[in-house]
Amino acid sequence: MSEIQVLLVAGTHGNELNAPWLFNQWRKNSTLIETHGIKVIREIGNLEAIKSCKRYLERDLNRSFSTELLNDLSNNEYEVNRAKELIFQYGLKGTQPCQIAFDFHSTTASMGCSLVVYGRRFNDLALAALIQHRLGLPIYLHECEISQTGFLVESWPCGLVVEIGPVPQGLLHTRIINQTKLTLEVCLEEIAKVQNGTALFPRKLIVYRHIESIDFPREASNYPCALLHPDVQNNNWLPLNNQTPLFIDAKGKIVRSFDGKESLAPVFINEAAYLEKNIAMSFTKREVWDFQDDWKKSLIDLIRF
Amino acid sequence: MSEIQVLLVAGTHGNELNAPWLFNQWRKNSTLIETHGIKVIREIGNLEAIKSCKRYLERDLNRSFSTELLNDLSNNEYEVNRAKELIFQYGLKGTQPCQIAFDFHSTTASMGCSLVVYGRRFNDLALAALIQHRLGLPIYLHECEISQTGFLVESWPCGLVVEIGPVPQGLLHTRIINQTKLTLEVCLEEIAKVQNGTALFPRKLIVYRHIESIDFPREASNYPCALLHPDVQNNNWLPLNNQTPLFIDAKGKIVRSFDGKESLAPVFINEAAYLEKNIAMSFTKREVWDFQDDWKKSLIDLIRF
Repeated sequence: MSEIQVLLVAGTHGNELNAPWLFNQWRKNSTLIETHGIKVIREIGNLEAIKSCKRYLERDLNRSFSTELLNDLSNNEYEVNRAKELIFQYGLKGTQPCQIAFDFHSTTASMGCSLVVYGRRFNDLALAALIQHRLGLPIYLHECEISQTGFLVESWPCGLVVEIGPVPQGLLHTRIINQTKLTLEVCLEEIAKVQNGTALFPRKLIVYRHIESIDFPREASNYPCALLHPDVQNNNWLPLNNQTPLFIDAKGKIVRSFDGKESLAPVFINEAAYLEKNIAMSFTKREVWDFQDDWKKSLIDLIRF
Repeated sequence: MSEIQVLLVAGTHGNELNAPWLFNQWRKNSTLIETHGIKVIREIGNLEAIKSCKRYLERDLNRSFSTELLNDLSNNEYEVNRAKELIFQYGLKGTQPCQIAFDFHSTTASMGCSLVVYGRRFNDLALAALIQHRLGLPIYLHECEISQTGFLVESWPCGLVVEIGPVPQGLLHTRIINQTKLTLEVCLEEIAKVQNGTALFPRKLIVYRHIESIDFPREASNYPCALLHPDVQNNNWLPLNNQTPLFIDAKGKIVRSFDGKESLAPVFINEAAYLEKNIAMSFTKREVWDFQDDWKKSLIDLIRF
């Protein structure tokens, strides 16, 4: 059996300072994080953007891993080059191959700690289920949004995003760092358990499946002309009922309500970085799935190779 | 009697979007704000920085109004030019002279709504007292910090900063906008009352007088090596007692406690924009001052000129 190697990335967005801070302290004190014997590689994602506390320089690094961009030899953007570099070093065929990647983020949305899974890869679902079983955290299944592609973790056979909030951009927050540490340690512990055959796979997986994203109402100039209704502002993961007010104008008048035929749960409500991406929130459908044996088999094959 | 004109500035920092949003809506609907008959001029401070949602381009606009910078003909920074422009137009000797300026900010610190007064100008103290009397908000008296100078409102005979938080940078928040609107209307109402002789000046003024700012513990490289203790994170305005823990390291060990001989109240705790300014928080001393008749006389002379 070969030894699995796990890639841990912090600072994929240069204004999310908390996971990079944890990694930095960990570098100076190797006992800070309990790795459960798992070999890890720590990387700071967007090295240049961090220096100026910006999300990115030329392109969102966490949208720079699409096949199209990676194969575009004429593209010389910093982030696309950085994506190529990370894959060259740590991709499955890289110089220091990693089988699993975790990408640690923070959000201004009041989402607590959650996992983001892109698509329905068996490895991701199996590992996310193990972590959910331990921490009880919600899993956001992101799929079928054509305008949002090229996520870092998709370039590894198994990869999860950890999102923790709420925290403003550009500051260090003890609670966020503690949550990052806790989640990171549980992720590694569950991988170790799969490796030594003691993982307890759950029977169910609860996912918040992405349905669609909605934007703020905007003027012709693209300037937002409405605000989030206070009833929705902090209510990530909670079901919206028909006619729940979503947006109000400057006078406090409701300008849009939720008109879904079925109850959906919003996530990433008022994430600051998504204002430019025309996303005020994303709607998800909470679903309870049966855990599939194929997922387990796939993850075991990946980890105990 | 001439008619007083009040300068209202929003977006002095380009990543504080809420006051600019309110001004933008107000421009389209002149009845949105009750001005109590006061003639106002609305300005967006850092027009260019707002476009890229950055605090500033070359220099903090709210540190660009020092005599030294304004008189430096060789300085061609965007913000210094913008400062000159605002004074040329709206200064007391400007083309559209204003006697009073309000500068609307937001902060990532959990400070609620507060006023900032720079130094002890009679006009500022009198007007701040009137607003405190109405809204009960705390007043931060900023003085004697040599590294922090050149604030916008100091270029007008009377000028106050309104700070509202907590809110992350770069997003719109209904609560912050409502608080901005409320405070703005009360400011104008109190000026109108001074104008028509019905202002009720209080007998006392409560100020949080600036004592000193402290930085995060840092490594030789300047990287912060400690975090705010959770007990202090959200406790702006509340007195610190001797030995209250302030900073902890990555292991949770207390690395600095408050060792003041007298009880001080911290403000601007973990303001994201102050990380680069080497300020983790500022200590203030809460003081109750007798309201001085000279302050009242000065303000009345300014408003009823």
